[in-house]
Amino acid sequence: MTAPANRQFRLKQRPQGRVTAADFDFISPPAADPGPGEVQVRTELLSLDPTNRIWMEDVPQYMPPVQLGEVMRGLGLGRVVASQADGFAPGDLVTGLLGWQDYYTGVPAGLQVLPPGLALPPEVLLGACGMTGVTAYFGLRDVGQPKPGETVAVSAAAGAVGSVAGQIAKIMGCRVVGIAGGAEKYAWLTGELGFDAAVDYKQPDWRAALKAAVPDGVDVDFENVGGEVMAGVTGRMNLGGRIVLCGMISGYNEGKPALGDYGSILMRRLRVQGFIVSDFAPRWGEAVGQLARWIGEGRIKHRETVVDGLEHAPAALNRLFDGENFGKLMIRVAR
Amino acid sequence: MTAPANRQFRLKQRPQGRVTAADFDFISPPAADPGPGEVQVRTELLSLDPTNRIWMEDVPQYMPPVQLGEVMRGLGLGRVVASQADGFAPGDLVTGLLGWQDYYTGVPAGLQVLPPGLALPPEVLLGACGMTGVTAYFGLRDVGQPKPGETVAVSAAAGAVGSVAGQIAKIMGCRVVGIAGGAEKYAWLTGELGFDAAVDYKQPDWRAALKAAVPDGVDVDFENVGGEVMAGVTGRMNLGGRIVLCGMISGYNEGKPALGDYGSILMRRLRVQGFIVSDFAPRWGEAVGQLARWIGEGRIKHRETVVDGLEHAPAALNRLFDGENFGKLMIRVAR
Repeated sequence: MTAPANRQFRLKQRPQGRVTAADFDFISPPAADPGPGEVQVRTELLSLDPTNRIWMEDVPQYMPPVQLGEVMRGLGLGRVVASQADGFAPGDLVTGLLGWQDYYTGVPAGLQVLPPGLALPPEVLLGACGMTGVTAYFGLRDVGQPKPGETVAVSAAAGAVGSVAGQIAKIMGCRVVGIAGGAEKYAWLTGELGFDAAVDYKQPDWRAALKAAVPDGVDVDFENVGGEVMAGVTGRMNLGGRIVLCGMISGYNEGKPALGDYGSILMRRLRVQGFIVSDFAPRWGEAVGQLARWIGEGRIKHRETVVDGLEHAPAALNRLFDGENFGKLMIRVAR
Repeated sequence: MTAPANRQFRLKQRPQGRVTAADFDFISPPAADPGPGEVQVRTELLSLDPTNRIWMEDVPQYMPPVQLGEVMRGLGLGRVVASQADGFAPGDLVTGLLGWQDYYTGVPAGLQVLPPGLALPPEVLLGACGMTGVTAYFGLRDVGQPKPGETVAVSAAAGAVGSVAGQIAKIMGCRVVGIAGGAEKYAWLTGELGFDAAVDYKQPDWRAALKAAVPDGVDVDFENVGGEVMAGVTGRMNLGGRIVLCGMISGYNEGKPALGDYGSILMRRLRVQGFIVSDFAPRWGEAVGQLARWIGEGRIKHRETVVDGLEHAPAALNRLFDGENFGKLMIRVAR
């Protein structure tokens, strides 16, 4: 049997601004056979996340940037097709950094086997009950530490992390205000997701709408966007407020230093804290278990935007930056 | 007996940049008699602090700005000369917001009676064992939370707060690097105060000196200065580092929004936290008691710069911004 073709995106040049297909070589070498201690995984779903864009930049960051010529780094969900590694057997469903390719072949460092018989579909295991949901869980609870009755603002509130973070804040008894762009997202947040209020930042009067939406100020800002939206929320923060710095997507295409308002940190005794979900790796099971329960009870609703075909990955990634995306964005690579 | 003259500085106009005497009316009305529930306090020492400059600006801040026509707000130490208030008797030594004047007359809100028989001189009670020492104590311990063996950087390290914060960090078992301007301060920090290293930010190669001084990076930045010095330290912060945002004196004369590096907060999972010493008011006694012990044991050394004469207050305040000041800056108003 000949090895299957392994389509893969290799980073050819560092993107200037928006990502384009021309930033990659899209090639199809034969998939390698796994050597001793290695596994081969067929990618089924590929997660598209703002952090993909960070990894393409040659700047200091929380992981090494993807080097030119390397397969683009990406989180995925797939099935083991061959294994010479302990603890991995053909048929196992795994998640981890499979990369923008059909087949991951290598040591299974960082790959996690999902327990068989889970009641949730794979899209949810990669989204609301996967890395993005876990990010929302620890970011809001452990970093933001909201108390019942406090006001929580969430930016990119219709996105994969924001939509879950806002719903957890509701479960924790907070007033929740979501910031997102467009009438459809506004309706989803205040309707289906049960947010107390939403602000459409594409409206010219969004600052007045924000003011009206937080009559008691903001105690916790779950920040995914940065820039002007963040500055607007910071201007409404209460004494002792917390800014959970989960992301600043508005600046990722620009490659410029991201600046924020230190004067307000000082004057209003704010706590601004960055975090990465992997800091909480030892407690991953706690988060997944709780999220799965809430999803099962219908207390956390979720939505996925699935784009068919690995070849669309570069173009689809831009949806995150264009605000076109609802919930968790992913690529279906194979069924 | 006629009432004594009460020299006082009343804010006439909001300073543009540096403070000048022309920003105040310096007048001498007779001191008012205390009414029911009021005290009269003779100011002996007046503390000059960077926050005085903030209070002159009409911008949102942690207390209302001083209004035009009002006596300039200032922390002082003085003696009660007349009292119609419970708990205050003539002869009591008190600290509180006495203002830039000879006599404070009014309700004793916020005034604290110092216990009689203290072994420390009044200058120390207003400095290393007063508000600035207490600021260093809570800021470093409770906000910065350094662990033994960690590296602590302190800016404005030869100032009233910085010099105490650095010495507490040494007591807590940390490597301590002080940043200050000029050879004399450098020598004081590394010699008398026992800092592990110092960086003279007035030298053109200060960034290289900083890099060499923190071979293991910076875990806690006790930040008093802001601007370029802060950016240099932020660039050396370790994962999980903490920035104790105590002040950003480099920008106070400019009145512009103070910006800081949110990108590093995100990428290195920093915690940046502002605080005001009054947040810790219920634990004031703990701090003063511990500071007094350390001072008595010679483990915390202190230095005061005392300028004679209330009339010099506006000009003397600029010493804080010019970097001319060692330790605690104060005005002797009366003996």
